[in-house]
Parts: sequence; C-alpha cells; structure tokens
Amino acid sequence: MSGQAELSRLSLNQITTENWSLSEAIDGCERNEVPWISIWRHKLAEYGMKETVTHLKNSGIKVSSLCRGGMFPASTQEERNIRIEDNKRAIEEAAELNTDTLVLVCGPSPDKDITQARKWVQEGIEAIIPYAEQHGIKLGIEPLHPMYAADRSVINTLGQANSLVKYYQSEQVGVVIDAFHVWWDPQLAQDIETARGSILGFHVSDWKVPIYDMFKGRSMMGDGVIDLHGMRKQVEAAGYAGPIEVEIMNQELWDRPGDEVLQLMKERYLEHV
Amino acid sequence: MSGQAELSRLSLNQITTENWSLSEAIDGCERNEVPWISIWRHKLAEYGMKETVTHLKNSGIKVSSLCRGGMFPASTQEERNIRIEDNKRAIEEAAELNTDTLVLVCGPSPDKDITQARKWVQEGIEAIIPYAEQHGIKLGIEPLHPMYAADRSVINTLGQANSLVKYYQSEQVGVVIDAFHVWWDPQLAQDIETARGSILGFHVSDWKVPIYDMFKGRSMMGDGVIDLHGMRKQVEAAGYAGPIEVEIMNQELWDRPGDEVLQLMKERYLEHV
Repeated sequence: MSGQAELSRLSLNQITTENWSLSEAIDGCERNEVPWISIWRHKLAEYGMKETVTHLKNSGIKVSSLCRGGMFPASTQEERNIRIEDNKRAIEEAAELNTDTLVLVCGPSPDKDITQARKWVQEGIEAIIPYAEQHGIKLGIEPLHPMYAADRSVINTLGQANSLVKYYQSEQVGVVIDAFHVWWDPQLAQDIETARGSILGFHVSDWKVPIYDMFKGRSMMGDGVIDLHGMRKQVEAAGYAGPIEVEIMNQELWDRPGDEVLQLMKERYLEHV
Repeated sequence: MSGQAELSRLSLNQITTENWSLSEAIDGCERNEVPWISIWRHKLAEYGMKETVTHLKNSGIKVSSLCRGGMFPASTQEERNIRIEDNKRAIEEAAELNTDTLVLVCGPSPDKDITQARKWVQEGIEAIIPYAEQHGIKLGIEPLHPMYAADRSVINTLGQANSLVKYYQSEQVGVVIDAFHVWWDPQLAQDIETARGSILGFHVSDWKVPIYDMFKGRSMMGDGVIDLHGMRKQVEAAGYAGPIEVEIMNQELWDRPGDEVLQLMKERYLEHV
C-alpha cells in the first residue's frame, strides 16, 4: 500500500460538488467511476430517503459516511437533549443508507467555557452509543482545525479525539482523520498510531496559502502544503484501508461543472494522495 | 493577584496602533498613562535607535519586548545563516532598547516537510542562545495559532514551545503566551503550569466570530470568546508577574484615532483581563 492510492477507495464527499443535488452527485460518481460517496443530511432531506436508497442501489455507488451528527454543546439540558435526539435520527439515516459511519462534528461552545463544552460533547456521544450499537453504526469523531474551535467544534486535535475513544471503551466509537484539520499537529504521527484500530475515515484536501475564507478556504489536493501522500501512508500503517473521501469547500470549485471537478479530483488523488 | 489586572502591567504592542509611528506610539503611551510598549523592528528602523532610546528615556515608557526574531526555516544553509545573523541584530537592538525579551516568531516551512522545518527552528534558536546570553536578552518562543502553520510559524502549541525550552536547558530561553494563539488548546492549563519559571510574556486580544481576515482578524478584549481573565489567573498562578501586552491586528481599530484605541484598551483590560 505504499505506492499510488487505489481509485477503488476514492469517495466524493458531496460538499466538493456543492452545486449538485444528491441525485446529480450519485449520477456524477457513476459517470466518472468514483465508487464511493459521502452524503450530507440536508441534501438527503431534499432528495428523500427512499429515492436515495433506490438510486444508490441502481448505480452501485456505496456510501462511505453520512455527514453529520454532533453539535452537542448547548446552554440548557433541554436543548442538549434535542441535539441528542437529532443525532439518533442521523444514526437511523446512516443505517438506512447502508453506511457504517456517522461523522461527528462535535459543535462549538455556547459561551466562554470551552472546558464545559467539551464535557457536554463527552456526555452527548456517551448518550448515543447504545443507539448507534443497535443500528450497527459507528460514530466517527472528527477533530476540526483549531481555527474552528469558536464556531464549529471544540474537539480540535486527534489526541483529544483519541482520548474520547479511550474513555468510552466501545467499538462503536472511533476517529475520522481529515488532513486539512490535523496536518499542522506536531503530535500527528504518534496520534495516528494511537488511533490504530479505531480509524473510521480519512479525508483529503489541501491547505493553500493564503486561506481566503475560513470555511471555503480548502483547496484541491496538490495545490497546497500538506504532505498527503505521507499522511496516507501513516494512516494505512495504522491499519486503515477504507474509503478516502475528498472533502473540499471551495467557491471556485463549486462554480465549475461537477464533471470537471470529479476528473480533476481523480487526477490529483492519483498524483498526490 | 486574583482580582482586576493592574494597569501598571499594561503594555501597548505597537501593532495595535499600526498607523502610529514609533514616536507617536511612545507619546500616546505617555499621554494615556500606559507604562509599557512593545516595539516592532520595522517601526524602530523608521524612527532610528538613538532617537528611540532618547524618547523612551524622556517619556519614562518601558519596553516590554522587541518584536520580533525568528523566521529560521529556509531551504539552504546559506539562507538559514542569514536568518541567524538577522536574529543577532535583533538581540543587539533588544539590548539597546533596555528590554529583556526578544519575541521569536519561528517561521513557516519552505516546503511540505514541516518536521524538517521544526528541526531548523530548533537549530536556529540553539545557534543564537550564546549571543543572547552575552547581551542579557531572553528569547521568548511564541507559539502561533495552527492556522498560521503554513505561512508564519511551525511552532503551534505551547506544549511544543515548552519542549524546546526543556531541550535547551538554558535560562536564556522561555515562552511567550498569546491568548489568541493558544486559547483553543485542550492541553493549555497543564502546559501553562509546565511553563512555570520560563514565561517571558503574556499577550491578550480576543477571538470574535467570524474571523474575517486570517491576519487582521483579532478583536479587542471582551469582543470575543476567550476567557482572558481565567487565562491571566492561570499564567499568574504559574509565576508570571510581568507586563501584559495588548496585541491586536484589526483594520477597524487601525482606522480609529490612536488615543481612542488606547482608552478603549485600558477599559477593556480592566474589565476583561
């Protein structure tokens, strides 16, 4: 597994082709021979579960993960319970889509107490583990880059995600490693090794200077500074052999025809991942 | 030291009033009773060392630090040597300004090998320690937020800076803790405690959502999500009792009259730090 990445593992995270509906994205994967797709819940809601399941079955495209559960911290118990219920719906959806992984973006703090918010994340995940187990769904804790600590997730390093996995002692919980979020981390190599056996996903994109937008600032593989090939080898050495998702929020890519994006994505994947 | 921060420790990092010359900034501190200033080298070069030293002496304003040395990684040994020589000039300037601290912004990687770049940082600091000792200057390693790992510094956590301090075993080397860069870190509390005895500076500003610009995205204390008061208490509990610098790159603040900014800075410092 040390050479070129295999196209059989390539997955389109559908936010990479944000202007496509889910139906268009499934067709696009089929047309461009991308065997996997990662589905976002708002796109799923637009298309409908039944239509999606049928379309996937007819196309042969497999679902690498559902994006996303999480968003656990909130200032009241009532609101935190609502979030937990929503995560249960996400688990049901993941099961219906026949994927095994629900990606968790754990959520920001409602106030200045980030330590408390992290406890709420811990409690929130704990609350949904039995439901995930019943439905055969694994919960992938995705650490987000520290620049999203205030508005998207208080889980910001792989080390932190690993600690949660260790805390639960449950096969239902693992980590999702996204290169854009973790590439900078001086502890990364050892944290990938620590994650052995619990890696549920590997996402790729690139970090190009300057980052012109906090959310839509990601770039196509090869356009930035991340050693994606090296990171893939580390992740594989730690035992992960599953799908590799390309997840890129980038306005310029969104403005291009989806088929062009998928072709470019395949080329860059082979060259840089 | 658990109540309000003391104004006697307040320092204007002069980038907070970027539109002021160094001469204007010293006058501004005197007029607004801000007892300390942190000086940037390009502003010092514009004004002149002799003029600056005389002006500081006449005003009674003390220099909390010189910004900045560092920028060690480069792809050739020749270029790395040039950077080291430039750091020696910075050490000389710090000594002439009668400050004891040179802040190190360690620099980005010239390529995709961030691990190698980190070794060059380690070597670069090691090379200037004897010179710093001769001149009575301490080297403050300032970890920068991971969102600057690609373009400003490959030292991105306080834990990493602490490891360097431990490696050198030299009283000449310590850390500078900037709230904006480290607030998100799940290891922060213990890393501040680990830094006991080697904390050379404490910088404050705030993280307001959304961050509209990667460089100029900082906000005035109280406008964002950082628990500055809690962090000051942690830093003090770890033994630091020196100046507290307000360092804010923010276009809106730069566009306001400097005296207004200094008055606001004093109010917010008393309320939130």
